[in-house]
Amino acid sequence: MQAPFTTLSEFRETLAKAPVTDDTAVQAAQERNGQLTKPPGALGQLEDIAIWYAGWRGNPQPQINAPQVVIFAGNHGVCAQGVSAFPPEVTVQMVANFENGGAAINQLSKAFGAKMDVHALSLETPTADFTQAPAMTEAEVVTALRIGWEAVDPASDLLVTGEMGIGNTTSASAVAAAVLGGDAADWTGRGTGVDDAGLARKTEVVAKGLVLHATDDPLEALRCLGGRELAAMAGAIAAARHHRIPVILDGFICCAAAATLAKAADGALDHAIAGHQSAEGAHARLLAALDKKPLLQLGLRLGEGSGAALAIGVLKGAIACHSGMATFAEAGVSEG
Amino acid sequence: MQAPFTTLSEFRETLAKAPVTDDTAVQAAQERNGQLTKPPGALGQLEDIAIWYAGWRGNPQPQINAPQVVIFAGNHGVCAQGVSAFPPEVTVQMVANFENGGAAINQLSKAFGAKMDVHALSLETPTADFTQAPAMTEAEVVTALRIGWEAVDPASDLLVTGEMGIGNTTSASAVAAAVLGGDAADWTGRGTGVDDAGLARKTEVVAKGLVLHATDDPLEALRCLGGRELAAMAGAIAAARHHRIPVILDGFICCAAAATLAKAADGALDHAIAGHQSAEGAHARLLAALDKKPLLQLGLRLGEGSGAALAIGVLKGAIACHSGMATFAEAGVSEG
Repeated sequence: MQAPFTTLSEFRETLAKAPVTDDTAVQAAQERNGQLTKPPGALGQLEDIAIWYAGWRGNPQPQINAPQVVIFAGNHGVCAQGVSAFPPEVTVQMVANFENGGAAINQLSKAFGAKMDVHALSLETPTADFTQAPAMTEAEVVTALRIGWEAVDPASDLLVTGEMGIGNTTSASAVAAAVLGGDAADWTGRGTGVDDAGLARKTEVVAKGLVLHATDDPLEALRCLGGRELAAMAGAIAAARHHRIPVILDGFICCAAAATLAKAADGALDHAIAGHQSAEGAHARLLAALDKKPLLQLGLRLGEGSGAALAIGVLKGAIACHSGMATFAEAGVSEG
Repeated sequence: MQAPFTTLSEFRETLAKAPVTDDTAVQAAQERNGQLTKPPGALGQLEDIAIWYAGWRGNPQPQINAPQVVIFAGNHGVCAQGVSAFPPEVTVQMVANFENGGAAINQLSKAFGAKMDVHALSLETPTADFTQAPAMTEAEVVTALRIGWEAVDPASDLLVTGEMGIGNTTSASAVAAAVLGGDAADWTGRGTGVDDAGLARKTEVVAKGLVLHATDDPLEALRCLGGRELAAMAGAIAAARHHRIPVILDGFICCAAAATLAKAADGALDHAIAGHQSAEGAHARLLAALDKKPLLQLGLRLGEGSGAALAIGVLKGAIACHSGMATFAEAGVSEG
């Protein structure tokens, strides 16, 4: 579906007009939950998830039949600063791996019945090195936001956004620091396996970017410090809200992209749940800043949407129980 | 498959002769894991799970195609002491709910493609009240162990054991205390919603049972303090080991039953993983005593195998990645 914005300012207006949860569906789902054949609260967080999901779908007895995983890939000029243990060629190689079905996210999408799409964003033209210039022009960031928006299938009922981009933990750290405050060191981690010297270099690079592109505007931070795949994830998460499709957030990079939305419009992530807490150092801090409690903590740090895709199983389980269980009356079970 | 024991002593011998993991398959799975298109360790615990699973299946590139969920139900004489907020009739009502597909475990089994079987164990004849006499005779506990053993389909490739039995957290607390040491209060929790007075009463009842049936023998503790469904779970977990079928442990009651095996034979739970940590107070302590780290912590406290069934998704995801991903060589991706 065509994105309803062609400038950052129009994107900001789109966020401000986003739909909210359906209170009637929430209340009906709560009532149903109280009648199911289990002691009150015995399904723990699964109950909260089901009621939250029902609200966004506007349906007190919803189903998850069509989850979508969408992966965005981008290349980063900041790789020139030696911030990654892998060469930038790996981004395009991994996109081929996604397209050939060989990556972790392919297996997880298949295992949980999700449709998976891959969007490679101008890999031959990395963003500018943010230690020298803004990573993207306004036209570039808006194009990426639009690609993200238009990648979302309005007929899907659950969205996972993932990413691939050598160097993108550096971008994500800079975006998180710019949007949420704190020092470069608070937000910079080892990403995909850099050593101590690499970590020090990354931290310096992030600090340099923060000085060069100081701004209070989260979307401007996304433009100057982010990457195309981060902007596309933000666009996709915003589109999901527009279509009332709940989102499972992935790891550090996905959450940094999402944080720009949360700061640009109050409640912009109310339709999103944290799929997992990754092993990337600052992800726990980022989740806390977003006030999101992760469903899984299994030490993943791969990106690609992998942790969020794994959490599709938890959401499917929650909705299956909520919508499929018998009530005490239906089953003839005493309520104690 | 017919159980290879007809006495507790023969069951003990069966445990001592249990197969161990296949080191060759473990090594081959580790090698494969190192070649997959991801940074080393980036799938976190999913990698450990896949290698562990491969070892028990004796296959470095295994699949999960036939998970089995088996639910055992029993009634407890100790209910006469007022230890539950629900009447014992609920056990038989919930068995009917399982058989009609209306319970949480039905939805979770279906969501994760597991075959589900229910075994109601002499519900019309509760175990003896363990504050007065041993809960079971040797013939009764062996019958329950055998039913559990024979409930396991040798063709399945993953097992979840669940339970239903009004009063069975009281039994499980007593068994855990007898087998693992500590006071009644250390192991007694609110189960399915008892209040403060109920908790005090449960703790007293457990303490009374521990005095009356003091023993160093974990299988004797199972007989005197346990219940038919606990014994059946222990039998099923032992059978799974015999058939090299990995097991996902559920909550407090399942783990108390499993603890009797761990104490009866070193390494008897090496083929088992903890599916979740339940909200039942002493489950965390029980998992620590078994040296098992839970995959999920979502505040469930329902029993029925529900937390373990939810974790089938995590295992399916882990095995799908391990066995389905391309290697660096296959995908033409640089290793960095």
